[in-house]
Amino acid sequence: MEINVERLLQDIERYSAYGASDVGGVSRPSFSEADREVRCLFIQELKEMGLAVTVDGAANIWGKKKGKGNKKGSIVIGSHLDTVPNGGKYDGALGTLMAKELIKTLFEKGVVLHHDLEIVSFTAEESNDFNLATFGSRSFTGKLTVEELEKASDHNGKMLKDELKKVGGGLDKFPMMRTMAKEKKAFIELHIEQGKRLESSNCSVAIVDRFVGMYRSNVRVVGQSNHSGTTMMEHRADALTAAAEMVLEVERQCKEDDSDLVGTVGKLNVFPNATNIIPGQVEFHFEVRGGEEKRIYQVVEKVKEKWKILAEHRGVDFHEDVFLEQAPILLDPSVVDILKNTAEEMNEQNITMSSMAIHDAVHMASVAQTAMLFVKSINGKSHCPEEYSAKEDIRKAGNLMLKSIINLDKNLL
Amino acid sequence: MEINVERLLQDIERYSAYGASDVGGVSRPSFSEADREVRCLFIQELKEMGLAVTVDGAANIWGKKKGKGNKKGSIVIGSHLDTVPNGGKYDGALGTLMAKELIKTLFEKGVVLHHDLEIVSFTAEESNDFNLATFGSRSFTGKLTVEELEKASDHNGKMLKDELKKVGGGLDKFPMMRTMAKEKKAFIELHIEQGKRLESSNCSVAIVDRFVGMYRSNVRVVGQSNHSGTTMMEHRADALTAAAEMVLEVERQCKEDDSDLVGTVGKLNVFPNATNIIPGQVEFHFEVRGGEEKRIYQVVEKVKEKWKILAEHRGVDFHEDVFLEQAPILLDPSVVDILKNTAEEMNEQNITMSSMAIHDAVHMASVAQTAMLFVKSINGKSHCPEEYSAKEDIRKAGNLMLKSIINLDKNLL
Repeated sequence: MEINVERLLQDIERYSAYGASDVGGVSRPSFSEADREVRCLFIQELKEMGLAVTVDGAANIWGKKKGKGNKKGSIVIGSHLDTVPNGGKYDGALGTLMAKELIKTLFEKGVVLHHDLEIVSFTAEESNDFNLATFGSRSFTGKLTVEELEKASDHNGKMLKDELKKVGGGLDKFPMMRTMAKEKKAFIELHIEQGKRLESSNCSVAIVDRFVGMYRSNVRVVGQSNHSGTTMMEHRADALTAAAEMVLEVERQCKEDDSDLVGTVGKLNVFPNATNIIPGQVEFHFEVRGGEEKRIYQVVEKVKEKWKILAEHRGVDFHEDVFLEQAPILLDPSVVDILKNTAEEMNEQNITMSSMAIHDAVHMASVAQTAMLFVKSINGKSHCPEEYSAKEDIRKAGNLMLKSIINLDKNLL
Repeated sequence: MEINVERLLQDIERYSAYGASDVGGVSRPSFSEADREVRCLFIQELKEMGLAVTVDGAANIWGKKKGKGNKKGSIVIGSHLDTVPNGGKYDGALGTLMAKELIKTLFEKGVVLHHDLEIVSFTAEESNDFNLATFGSRSFTGKLTVEELEKASDHNGKMLKDELKKVGGGLDKFPMMRTMAKEKKAFIELHIEQGKRLESSNCSVAIVDRFVGMYRSNVRVVGQSNHSGTTMMEHRADALTAAAEMVLEVERQCKEDDSDLVGTVGKLNVFPNATNIIPGQVEFHFEVRGGEEKRIYQVVEKVKEKWKILAEHRGVDFHEDVFLEQAPILLDPSVVDILKNTAEEMNEQNITMSSMAIHDAVHMASVAQTAMLFVKSINGKSHCPEEYSAKEDIRKAGNLMLKSIINLDKNLL
């Protein structure tokens, strides 16, 4: 039994016309006109497939195919249909349309599962104007409350609660999600990798067994602001040259670590930031992510030790405020094992990896037995028009997921 | 013959009350209420001394004491009375009030020069809201035209031409400055050093023989913006870590140079500047200042060679746009020599140095034989409430200037 990869690729092209940008990308943020149109299309197609469609309070779209009824709860597959501005055709859409393709294939082969089988498309997974990434899955799993959403608005003053109403959701429908969540037994999300690890490994597909932990802090470097002409090199306490060394130390320590750990200074601001004034202060965000908590803290400690030495050497001070400490989140070992065993059974080469980014699956993991599959991203690109995954990789990942669902249906307790 | 240093220090305290800030500094930008008040006081005191006061088109205040008339043109001394926000008591005011003290001393001793002797206080020497630093001296020396000033306004929309009128200037009075400028034969400005070179040398006073040359460019570093989680360390083209190395290279090359050369990256912006995105671009301003043009370009070339190597190594590009190339400006050798000889005659230890910052003297040098004297700044501080010069240093500088004026009057051809 195989998926129809041509049909899936046509679906991807067809859906990418909604919000198509002039430069070949897709701009389809949730609640935009393109999003509203694609929702109509998606719901219509699910209904045409004979699925029972529900739109929940967070405007997540669910489509259910009843199973034989001898196993309780449903197996859920899906992802999201929103994109970043001028994003690609695959991030979110591939997982959602793959779910549709899998259900279609099972229909055509006359396969009925023991469990109910559900497809989901989550609302506003991407960073958005309401500052609420993974809004749909967070709402569904009870991590966002009606109270805090009541006053959420975008920079134009549009209220989230009004936008929800326009696409079939609504804060009044939030309580029903608590009941719905209890019915979900397992969740598998297929997604593009958005990195180059699969390319390096020569595999088409990765089994994701965890979400990385994360450490984030705000670092303020305090030197002495002074005239850039009259202050000789040896009399300076330049906060920017100090920060430059600190930034390079983050890179150095993370490169030395041989695990999947990464560290980044993505945000940095200089004060007073004038051509002719030696910077008196620099503020930056320090981030480390990794699959192993112990390693994260080892690197953070090493970096900070080096920072202390160089700050002393340069006669500057630094202050660190940690604002995020998130332990790695392990996905469900049973589902991960079923994916691994199915891959072995099918002789499908694969690697196991941590997800370095947040996905809806990280939230679904709190209500259902969850795992993820990653499909190779060409050149590791995502969130841009060049985002691409090759047909052969998509085909392999789809067939592994198809067989895994059947094995999951059989073996899930 | 000696100046009355106590009287001068009292003047400095008295004047510093105009625009005194809560935290011990002075906020007296040109055209502010404090500036208008201090102008009235200054003009009144010049008149009380019997000087003929003129306010020119740029609202520069001039006070003239007629000489014996047997030598043409006038010897001008002075500086400015405006300050940066929350600046100090000495920057500008010391040179202006010292000029007043010198004239008073000469009066009291009954000394009448061969030349006319003039005091000047220039308008808006400091960086200001009209984006016109050294406005007064640039206007006086014909470097700013009525046409371009006609439309100059601050961020509140106040027109410069209106502000000028309120303090006795006016664009209609600009042509008269052309005639006035022709009468100025020599100019000596005394100013605080705003650096630590005098402190290091154990001298009270420096003779300034040149203004440093300056090289400024905008550098854009282009890497690859990417997800801070999914992009492994070895797959990155981080524009910020590249820029960090480039900034440190500026520091390294300037430290290696053994002249008075300095180099600074004072302004730096990161794009997109988000915690979870590897910086795709960084833009910064690169500045080098030095007394010797050849050295400036040697350092600039060395820095750029290193930048090329490291950019290639890191897989990033950089583009440089030079927006300022200013050769060092040599001050008048005759006046400089008279200052040096007078110091020798008085046994006053001194050093010769470049001015690393812009002063009104750099512009006056285009219409009169000009030199400067620097007085030691304690801890090199300026543009802040802690700005300070010690009584003994001020006394020595004042007496050197007094004697130099007499020698200048005798020896100037």
